[in-house]
Amino acid sequence: MRASFDLSLYLVLDPVQCGGHDAAVRVARAALEGGVTIVQLRAPEWHKRAWLDLARELLPITRAHGVPFIVNDHVDVALAVGADGVHIGQRDLPADVARQLLGPDALIGLSVSNPDETAGAETLAGVIDYLGAGPVYATPTKTDASPPCGIDGLAEICAAARLPTVAIGGIQAHNAADVMRGKPAGLAVVSAICKAADPREAASALAATIAQSRI
Amino acid sequence: MRASFDLSLYLVLDPVQCGGHDAAVRVARAALEGGVTIVQLRAPEWHKRAWLDLARELLPITRAHGVPFIVNDHVDVALAVGADGVHIGQRDLPADVARQLLGPDALIGLSVSNPDETAGAETLAGVIDYLGAGPVYATPTKTDASPPCGIDGLAEICAAARLPTVAIGGIQAHNAADVMRGKPAGLAVVSAICKAADPREAASALAATIAQSRI
Repeated sequence: MRASFDLSLYLVLDPVQCGGHDAAVRVARAALEGGVTIVQLRAPEWHKRAWLDLARELLPITRAHGVPFIVNDHVDVALAVGADGVHIGQRDLPADVARQLLGPDALIGLSVSNPDETAGAETLAGVIDYLGAGPVYATPTKTDASPPCGIDGLAEICAAARLPTVAIGGIQAHNAADVMRGKPAGLAVVSAICKAADPREAASALAATIAQSRI
Repeated sequence: MRASFDLSLYLVLDPVQCGGHDAAVRVARAALEGGVTIVQLRAPEWHKRAWLDLARELLPITRAHGVPFIVNDHVDVALAVGADGVHIGQRDLPADVARQLLGPDALIGLSVSNPDETAGAETLAGVIDYLGAGPVYATPTKTDASPPCGIDGLAEICAAARLPTVAIGGIQAHNAADVMRGKPAGLAVVSAICKAADPREAASALAATIAQSRI
């Protein structure tokens, strides 16, 4: 059975932005203490051995917080470490292939950036568990990203999607409340936590903004 | 049981060098007709969906020639397509992890570039099946490669290795006979076939050079 999951505050942990392996572990730990509800490892510049080493260190930390640990793109790394799932993009392995390799219990998320991709993703209900919608804003984090969808585009995707949808792309403390107006299930952040002077405080403040926006 | 394999003429198929998906299929077909004995797909610039699409098209072609089809680095792509094995580098997933994911029948090759790495690889006999030694010469193909080992370095690796060893890195028609003096089990080439005007003829000429060097 797939574990329940909470997309409210979704940390995409980029160890290069954090400042390396050890710093990434510290950021993850602090962010979990601050209220992050799901953690994804994404290290596009890294070779897989470094992914594996970091994933092996992160998994017990996320487990201790009862938070799912997701691997971006690399199904083999997820399998090797026993991660809770993967997040895939439109150009990564197809969702049905990822599901076949990972089995029925894994969480699988899929990135969508427009209504067409969202409609395609909805045909995969049962195969995938959630959508990542964005980029909401232009972001230097992901150089191969689609054009930004904005809050209106996000709202359109969230309205069309039956799957829970987390917003991603350029989300920071100052725009988090705006993005929540698009009615996503939660917010995914990268630099807002990875580059924060105090990742615990950054996570805590974002969690408060998200909770406030739902009242 | 692991299939027998012949490292004599090992094509590392880079679809970008070939000119794209369709061109890569044509190159592979021609190279197999010319005498290639093993085919590895390596497309570092590509996302995995493109790897998968090309791998799915290549596999029946290699099967028809009774030649193993190997995937570089991505164990998940190898699993998804049912490839015959993977080739991993020192910074990819560790060999024991790849073996665990792929099972006992897969071929696993490991890159080594110096005596230390070769000694390490020899402790993995039973886990890995062959070594890729190099780069013999500096090559623009792989921008993150180790320093060239030269023919002397290659000879040292081949003498130390009990596992069959294929030489790689800057190998072309004009230096193939020289490289064979290092006593590898075979030669791995990228641009010598992928960028050849006539990949079948290029493969055939290399196969002849290799056969001649063994007399």
